[in-house]
Amino acid sequence: MTEHLVTFEPFATLVRVPTGTLLSEAAHLAGVEIGQPCGGQGRCGRCTVLVKAGAVRRRSTLRLSSEDIAQGYALACQSVVEGDVSVYVPPQEKIERRLTTDRTAGEVEVPAGYNPLLSQSLRRYRLMLAPPSIDDQTDDWSRLQLAFKQEAGIEEMKVSLSTLRKIGDILREDDWRVTAIVDTETWDCPNCPPRLIDLRPGHAMLNDPVWGAAIDIGTTTVSLWLVDLVTGQVQAQVAEYNGQIARGEDVISRIIFAGKNGGSDQMRSLVLETINQLVETACKRVNARPDEVVRATIAGNSTMMHLLLGIPASNIRLAPFITAVNHVPSLTAEEIGLAIHPQASVDCLPGVASYVGADISAGVYSSGLGDTEKLTLFLDVGTNGEMVLGTREWLVTCACSAGPAFEGAGVLHGMRATKGAIEEVWINNHTYEPTYRVISSVKARGFCGSGLISLLAEMFLTGIVDKGGNVNLSLNTPRTREGEHGPEYVVVWGADSADGKDIVITRVDIDNLLRAKASIYAGFTILADSVGIPLEAVEQVLIGGSFGKYINVEKAVQIGLLPDMPWDRFSFLGNTSVRGAYYALLDKDAREKIREIAVRMTYIELSADNTFYDAFISAMFLPHTDLSRFPSVEATLSTA
Amino acid sequence: MTEHLVTFEPFATLVRVPTGTLLSEAAHLAGVEIGQPCGGQGRCGRCTVLVKAGAVRRRSTLRLSSEDIAQGYALACQSVVEGDVSVYVPPQEKIERRLTTDRTAGEVEVPAGYNPLLSQSLRRYRLMLAPPSIDDQTDDWSRLQLAFKQEAGIEEMKVSLSTLRKIGDILREDDWRVTAIVDTETWDCPNCPPRLIDLRPGHAMLNDPVWGAAIDIGTTTVSLWLVDLVTGQVQAQVAEYNGQIARGEDVISRIIFAGKNGGSDQMRSLVLETINQLVETACKRVNARPDEVVRATIAGNSTMMHLLLGIPASNIRLAPFITAVNHVPSLTAEEIGLAIHPQASVDCLPGVASYVGADISAGVYSSGLGDTEKLTLFLDVGTNGEMVLGTREWLVTCACSAGPAFEGAGVLHGMRATKGAIEEVWINNHTYEPTYRVISSVKARGFCGSGLISLLAEMFLTGIVDKGGNVNLSLNTPRTREGEHGPEYVVVWGADSADGKDIVITRVDIDNLLRAKASIYAGFTILADSVGIPLEAVEQVLIGGSFGKYINVEKAVQIGLLPDMPWDRFSFLGNTSVRGAYYALLDKDAREKIREIAVRMTYIELSADNTFYDAFISAMFLPHTDLSRFPSVEATLSTA
Repeated sequence: MTEHLVTFEPFATLVRVPTGTLLSEAAHLAGVEIGQPCGGQGRCGRCTVLVKAGAVRRRSTLRLSSEDIAQGYALACQSVVEGDVSVYVPPQEKIERRLTTDRTAGEVEVPAGYNPLLSQSLRRYRLMLAPPSIDDQTDDWSRLQLAFKQEAGIEEMKVSLSTLRKIGDILREDDWRVTAIVDTETWDCPNCPPRLIDLRPGHAMLNDPVWGAAIDIGTTTVSLWLVDLVTGQVQAQVAEYNGQIARGEDVISRIIFAGKNGGSDQMRSLVLETINQLVETACKRVNARPDEVVRATIAGNSTMMHLLLGIPASNIRLAPFITAVNHVPSLTAEEIGLAIHPQASVDCLPGVASYVGADISAGVYSSGLGDTEKLTLFLDVGTNGEMVLGTREWLVTCACSAGPAFEGAGVLHGMRATKGAIEEVWINNHTYEPTYRVISSVKARGFCGSGLISLLAEMFLTGIVDKGGNVNLSLNTPRTREGEHGPEYVVVWGADSADGKDIVITRVDIDNLLRAKASIYAGFTILADSVGIPLEAVEQVLIGGSFGKYINVEKAVQIGLLPDMPWDRFSFLGNTSVRGAYYALLDKDAREKIREIAVRMTYIELSADNTFYDAFISAMFLPHTDLSRFPSVEATLSTA
Repeated sequence: MTEHLVTFEPFATLVRVPTGTLLSEAAHLAGVEIGQPCGGQGRCGRCTVLVKAGAVRRRSTLRLSSEDIAQGYALACQSVVEGDVSVYVPPQEKIERRLTTDRTAGEVEVPAGYNPLLSQSLRRYRLMLAPPSIDDQTDDWSRLQLAFKQEAGIEEMKVSLSTLRKIGDILREDDWRVTAIVDTETWDCPNCPPRLIDLRPGHAMLNDPVWGAAIDIGTTTVSLWLVDLVTGQVQAQVAEYNGQIARGEDVISRIIFAGKNGGSDQMRSLVLETINQLVETACKRVNARPDEVVRATIAGNSTMMHLLLGIPASNIRLAPFITAVNHVPSLTAEEIGLAIHPQASVDCLPGVASYVGADISAGVYSSGLGDTEKLTLFLDVGTNGEMVLGTREWLVTCACSAGPAFEGAGVLHGMRATKGAIEEVWINNHTYEPTYRVISSVKARGFCGSGLISLLAEMFLTGIVDKGGNVNLSLNTPRTREGEHGPEYVVVWGADSADGKDIVITRVDIDNLLRAKASIYAGFTILADSVGIPLEAVEQVLIGGSFGKYINVEKAVQIGLLPDMPWDRFSFLGNTSVRGAYYALLDKDAREKIREIAVRMTYIELSADNTFYDAFISAMFLPHTDLSRFPSVEATLSTA
């Protein structure tokens, strides 16, 4: 097999690979990180590299202009090595770490009347053992069991091999005085004996914290709240991008990646690294050690849960869309690979179906939908859009693949909501000149989701695009023009942009945005139709997910993403998933209610529903084929 | 830090180490294996190497003659590098693999009336699941649980993460037909739900075997019986030296080694390698795959059990001699590291105390002592000597450290019972010329245990040694002489030996043998005294352990190792420990009886017993200070 030398600049990293190797694989082998948000499918163009010398064969040039190709650009995920090659890797969009910080920590209220003795199954015991002697050669473990029996009335106790490995030293370190943390009850095995989680030398003080972690694994962001289970207080809140992002931006790309050889292990490690790093950061903030965290609850969509646990997720993607497990059994941190106490009980909250996971069960509980009499629409928009309609009496749910457009991916100049992202746009309806606001007030680099919603709404209201999303090229402005990818509108001229190039929105981008918003709106329609209730009857719309924190309701209604109703019916709840995990961490009754919610939600599979397709097509217009559904937009248009 | 180059011949292996590094460590770093039966304490002399050039400092020269030292020999475990060194490693005694083979396989009878439905908690189910569809998106695990409920009446089931990782593929491989093996009962958690052990695509045939393994971990030999749990038949018996031997020949050396940095992990890996190799060999013999073995029971002394499980054993060695755990909880193969089915239930049988382990609980059960009305002495002599006295009504037990002398270690020309070992000796009482039998009839290389017992008895009966073990140098024979290590008797002249050197037994060797036999005999005495029964009242002596298979009762009585009683009271049972593990593997009632035996044995700690020391000193003579205890020997002497 012929081998070739691939050189990566500016790293000056060399690697030798056989003919036919993908440049992205060569980069991986060389330890050069090249982001592949679309999972290596040639869709996103984020892995563009410049071939300076040598032979590569391009399998696909989707996302590259003919000019790009002429200059030597190639998609690393779509180009194979055919000779010695020298490749230049352009500076990647540097992911800025946008942390949810302590500023919201104070906002989390401990549930009224929290009493760990009633709500928790964890107990902390301080034991004093009789030392052994020649006349009493009882083995260490039996001696400890005897102390549990005498001092805590516990007749039988489960213990792990890893604890037995440490027991001898721990018992002797502080002269047979120890503090033990015991889980007296396992939610999925009520008849099982109590389980010894932690054993430490010496006697803990009564007020010493007992740490727990509530975790939400989002496709994009992982959030963790560190909680003192003695008081119930959230002592640290941290968040970080999910380390899997570089291997695919949406769940489908990640499932595909995980299905490749070694992909599942890589996915598992990546998200574990993210979580374990968050644990460390949070623990540092409160002066605790990670192995003092003795309980965790985890929420997340079904794909994230499968990937975390190393369970193949491929059947989630393929009809008839089946998860391996919705109700994950009780596990230990050691089994999962979480770097907290190895014996910590880890509770992966229950999901409903392939595309309605534990994040939604947790969100429905924490948002209060599970317990309200008002007809409520709960919406969690991330890379996927999940929605639940109902009251305390009934719940229907569905999910639609919005795609990553609202998160800045799948759009030519899309980017995440970091420094340099245009987050709001206004367009003069005579001159068609735009005004915009950029995050951190620097030179613009692209659009984030809220910027795109805002831009699309303005273009529609000013007639730059028609209701079908077609760009009007006959307007008296140089900003609408025929570009490399078809008709486009220039928001920022090269002279004003960060990289000196025009920042535009193209017809293709608009199509992606239309598809995303149409898919979400069609979801609402189907949900309402499924129970024979008009959308207008909805008394409140609860919006969860980090997406909800930045969205402009008015603009979202104008493009037909959100239903047209008085703005005061919309509430933004932030991360409802991690909040649900927090409640479940504190209270076994809350855990049980989340399970009940998961069981009683009726899931509607949209891919099997022809009416969804009709609703989707009807919603592929601005704001909708049926303008009467959007009276406020109709009114605005008539005055425009 | 100064570094030096150490060269090992004949391997021509180089390694660079700092000043002060032990030669044994340097060898280890260089990948050169040097046996250290005594655990690197300079006691056994097996790591002798020849320093051909360069500077080493000898910390201890125990076991080396001044001539050896003059020639450049050094103990690798006791010599530190002080400059560049060139070392020659002499050919090590090559361990010949003496396997307990199929010849005894036929001897094992399945317990009468074995019925797996009554005796086993394992069940095999053949399930047919309804395939999922868009209208039935139940997750895989819930779907399987439903089948268990409908077809087997199992309401709740425990499952491991590793099984959940495979469930999706297995269910789909043969069109939703699967065979499951379920453990319906865990001995240490009677209220726990059944546990799913194995899930395979397709339907097994009714007569297909369900494999289990009974394992005995001896300090010297590991034995494994592979059993078809459907019929109860032992289908393969295999045995192999414990891979830990090179790190110490007795339990004390191993505990010391395990206490060193990384030693515990090394000990664990070594014994796991041995067991896993045995599993593979046995499985090959019956055309099974190791992952088809779904249950195992393990017996072994307390140190072996701790080392297998990676539990520190140091407190076993130190007063007041405490084990970390005698009743090991139910574990899975995955947790232990056994290369059988990862979810196989592994039952480590219960031990009694630091020096009376699960091998004795299992031996007492399988020997029938636990259920006899006859006053019985059960004896298991290996590197340690454990003994139990009693009837079905009561049991007392003790252990004494016999040392490895009877296994050929701690004796100048001692060796294992392999090719070239002298196993029987006769001495002419006029000429003092010996006749001897060598294993495999080749030139003699040394003495194994039975050879040493035989030799000592003959020397005593012919007056070459007196009752104190002193060699009579005034006899008219060149075979008794003053040697390097004091007085000695030459059994084989160099001209007739394998390596051309005289094979001798020295005064020091005799002392070691006396100590070993005295310690065992003193154990009997204390046991009998502790219940106020004379030794002569014992109605049967059951001898377990591989040692028992080769011993010559007459000679053993003559040196005072075994009590003097009619030979027909002695029975040799072979490996009673693996047999007990086999019974426990087959039958949960047998398992429970072994537990009861472990609990009801009264352990006598000899080190805390002054009378033991007195009894030991009295037994340090041939056959004993009190000759009246050995009437048959007295009779022989009077006729000699």
